[in-house]
Amino acid sequence: MTAARPLSPTARSTVRRGATRARTDRAELHAVLDAGLVGHLGIVLDGAPVVLPTGYGRSGDTLYLHGSTGAATLRAAAAGGPVCFTVTHVDGVVYARSAFHHSMNYRCAVVHGTARLVDDPAERLLGLEALTEHLAPGSWTATRQPDRKELAATALLALDLTEASVKVRTGPPGDDEADLGLPVWAGVLPVRTVVGEPEPCPLLPAGTPVPDRVLSRRV
Amino acid sequence: MTAARPLSPTARSTVRRGATRARTDRAELHAVLDAGLVGHLGIVLDGAPVVLPTGYGRSGDTLYLHGSTGAATLRAAAAGGPVCFTVTHVDGVVYARSAFHHSMNYRCAVVHGTARLVDDPAERLLGLEALTEHLAPGSWTATRQPDRKELAATALLALDLTEASVKVRTGPPGDDEADLGLPVWAGVLPVRTVVGEPEPCPLLPAGTPVPDRVLSRRV
Repeated sequence: MTAARPLSPTARSTVRRGATRARTDRAELHAVLDAGLVGHLGIVLDGAPVVLPTGYGRSGDTLYLHGSTGAATLRAAAAGGPVCFTVTHVDGVVYARSAFHHSMNYRCAVVHGTARLVDDPAERLLGLEALTEHLAPGSWTATRQPDRKELAATALLALDLTEASVKVRTGPPGDDEADLGLPVWAGVLPVRTVVGEPEPCPLLPAGTPVPDRVLSRRV
Repeated sequence: MTAARPLSPTARSTVRRGATRARTDRAELHAVLDAGLVGHLGIVLDGAPVVLPTGYGRSGDTLYLHGSTGAATLRAAAAGGPVCFTVTHVDGVVYARSAFHHSMNYRCAVVHGTARLVDDPAERLLGLEALTEHLAPGSWTATRQPDRKELAATALLALDLTEASVKVRTGPPGDDEADLGLPVWAGVLPVRTVVGEPEPCPLLPAGTPVPDRVLSRRV
């Protein structure tokens, strides 16, 4: 039961600002990661940070990332440099009585570590399945699986979820006591991500039904 | 007219993977930034990348970021280290006939540079106004503006939009010719971010009307 193992933060994965917003339950880390579509991968390239959005998948306490074998960021991460991977959900705009206390409600997971280039063929398939199923549940078995050429063009990285933190803000604004009498509306405007109507590929034969895996997809 | 000045990418801001998705119009950079709520700020701390979500505001070709004067990432950025700031919108899940060609439709802006700690009082107010108005249009004038103590607790950083890139994917999946005959649904499931019903602060006097600046807020 990895979910029962609490997050054991190191110095850099200890939430310092707004520590009351830190969560230490591994199940919350998994929940924040599982609810996301993209994360932001940070690597150091020539001494400077590079932050790029990327899809991902999770299997237990392993996060899988992939990309072209030619991508500089993937190559840098695969070479064993430190990485940071962050997934953020914005849940609301927090309107306060003062400009200073305006804020956002959010859930955020930050993972620090060193990525491992996966070369075991079985784990590569498992990681790619996790990635595909994370993005599009049901698609791994419903579609053509990767062939030899596609596998050769894909770099798969594994990132252990050992060193991670979760930060969550919920609820109304934290206005100063002295401002509570101001005649200013305060509260939260909820923000959420939704899906629209499926748009069939123009090359699809007319009348091809939209499968349940697409119709039931929520984000 | 800064919007007329094309993006002049350096080596690191040149889109290499999927170069056909690169956009070079400065107006597109502004549009992607203006449509976002949070960006992901990457800095290098003790040789390792740290990627954290943060609000921002834009004034012309200057991006403003802020945070507590005590935040380690803000301090590192303010000290003149290189930063990367990335804003990503996910616009759709792209279902392909093969697992390999599954993808996302998205808009992404990546800014590289060195942040400048703003200490001029007038520019500090301008930057904080840009930040507040970006998050909650209309709130800067409708709410109590920062007092001396709040200003002292806030670090404001400016990041020039000189070195930036924009990457956009739209449209149906890019399946292989050989897969077009497979009996597999393909297309796009649009994803978008919406707002819900405003939730008044429990401390607000009953009957306080929700102002237009909140009712008309779209994200």
